[in-house]
Amino acid sequence: MAKTDDDREEGLRLNPRYDRDGLITAVASSVDTGELLMLAHMNAQALAATIETRVAHFWSRSRGKLWRKGEESGNELHIVDMRLDCDQDAIWLLVKPVGPACHTGRVSCFYRRVTDDGLEWIDREPHAH
Amino acid sequence: MAKTDDDREEGLRLNPRYDRDGLITAVASSVDTGELLMLAHMNAQALAATIETRVAHFWSRSRGKLWRKGEESGNELHIVDMRLDCDQDAIWLLVKPVGPACHTGRVSCFYRRVTDDGLEWIDREPHAH
Repeated sequence: MAKTDDDREEGLRLNPRYDRDGLITAVASSVDTGELLMLAHMNAQALAATIETRVAHFWSRSRGKLWRKGEESGNELHIVDMRLDCDQDAIWLLVKPVGPACHTGRVSCFYRRVTDDGLEWIDREPHAH
Repeated sequence: MAKTDDDREEGLRLNPRYDRDGLITAVASSVDTGELLMLAHMNAQALAATIETRVAHFWSRSRGKLWRKGEESGNELHIVDMRLDCDQDAIWLLVKPVGPACHTGRVSCFYRRVTDDGLEWIDREPHAH
């Protein structure tokens, strides 16, 4: 294993491995329920803003701009803990959500189960958003 | 919102939104501890194999091949539940891991905390792998 990879995996220096679009993957789960709430992406600016403010910031790939989660909906994700993975291209956010994390108004984006022959509902009704 | 997007978000048809590399993001967490174990990617073949066998399969981007997690280490991830996100480009695997999920030998890939000035250990020692 190359020295840089070894340092990245076994060191304590924050050295994110951004992809060709300059992004790492961010996954947020609720510290209270353990439920996975959402998955999004961060560029260096979003990561720095998240560390500084302790409120989740992402890079919106569809809008091409920095996005403070909840800036419009009010449904911020307050950071309790952040953990980086082995190769530093993914970050796990343990959060206290102010409201529903999904843009559909559901608590979590993961509201359908995968079965042998399609999907089934876990949280059926979309809510006001 | 376009009809196809609406169907993708509010329908029960499995219709993954693969990225330009033909991949969706997969996140595995332990059903027993709630801990996030690892993040990887699936192509259509890996997703189909996972649904069929109930053992996690991924697409190895570094090796460019289908990868049954644990095929070498024995550390399989046995699927208890699978949930797809709103826009069908991410899947949450709730699993019972046979052994450490991380290639470093740690239980989880997320073994370091992000602090204001770098990283700190949650699980310090890499293990045999």
